[in-house]
Amino acid sequence: MNSTVHANAMRLPEPLSTDLKTGLMDDDARIERANKTVGQMENVFLDELSRRKMDAAKLVYAVEAWKPVAEGTEGGLYWGNSTVFPGMVGDEYFMTRGHYHARKDRAEFYATVSGRGLLVLMDEHRHASVQEMGAGTTHYIPGKVAHRVVNTTEVPLTFLACWPSDAGHDYQTIAQQGFSVRVMRRNGRPEVVAQS
Amino acid sequence: MNSTVHANAMRLPEPLSTDLKTGLMDDDARIERANKTVGQMENVFLDELSRRKMDAAKLVYAVEAWKPVAEGTEGGLYWGNSTVFPGMVGDEYFMTRGHYHARKDRAEFYATVSGRGLLVLMDEHRHASVQEMGAGTTHYIPGKVAHRVVNTTEVPLTFLACWPSDAGHDYQTIAQQGFSVRVMRRNGRPEVVAQS
Repeated sequence: MNSTVHANAMRLPEPLSTDLKTGLMDDDARIERANKTVGQMENVFLDELSRRKMDAAKLVYAVEAWKPVAEGTEGGLYWGNSTVFPGMVGDEYFMTRGHYHARKDRAEFYATVSGRGLLVLMDEHRHASVQEMGAGTTHYIPGKVAHRVVNTTEVPLTFLACWPSDAGHDYQTIAQQGFSVRVMRRNGRPEVVAQS
Repeated sequence: MNSTVHANAMRLPEPLSTDLKTGLMDDDARIERANKTVGQMENVFLDELSRRKMDAAKLVYAVEAWKPVAEGTEGGLYWGNSTVFPGMVGDEYFMTRGHYHARKDRAEFYATVSGRGLLVLMDEHRHASVQEMGAGTTHYIPGKVAHRVVNTTEVPLTFLACWPSDAGHDYQTIAQQGFSVRVMRRNGRPEVVAQS
């Protein structure tokens, strides 16, 4: 079917495809992909010595993003997914770096596709809370709340995300100050541990 | 697991669940639900006489929305889904009313869960284009673009949506002026027909 009705039809982003069973997008040149390896996650995990002894090329997480409008566009949205792979650094589960949004009041939605884990949330007073993630769990992350995803299982944890195109990312605050809690394996089970 | 780590933890919206196989959210009091019946869709379809002869209680579409922040909140987001049921009014396929956003530059994402149909898009110059919807198709609807979903099959068409909490809805412009195209059944198949 011809999708253009008028000769002077508006120019719109053509659709692409998200496999809602896997959460992944199709092989489209418009998708931005980013991987984070053990080697790229210096000083993120508590046990930095253990990290340095690991295979630096091992994947910790992978991100796909569709950004149909320019970064910073007010009123626009981005769509994507992230997969946190199973693994440990010392007694700490694989996780994302975590970030605030640069435009602080910008929110985000997550919807878990598969796997299980924990969404760690922290406000600007460093008050933290943790939400359990599993197939279908849908999370509203308000503005001014840092967010990090931790995979507490032996299988990949994949979630969809939608966020404003003018949200931006502030990774630096977390890189400098960390979260006020970490998710550690204690007696074989995940435990949320406060950080001094 | 206790999701609260600090005694003075921040108050955050608890997660809810979206079944990504059906697109529907769980039975949660926080979900806003709205149904549109044949009886409620006066003057939307071309063949108003046929509509009046139909069962007024017949469902045309159903919407679920999770609005964790107040309408109009800048930087916030809403999450939801819509199902357009199979059916015809005369030779025109069941569809949503369609709308612009009240805050005109606000965008929206759709991701189709199941069924097939057409996403009708129209800018403020009444230039239209149409995108095919099917399992997994993911659509970016820019600001200033009216959007309507048409079910061209015999089974329900369900899609997820994410949109800004300050987008609002302008239904009135479409109610008064309609779209510049309609999707009609011609020789048993959907055809996009320009409206004078």
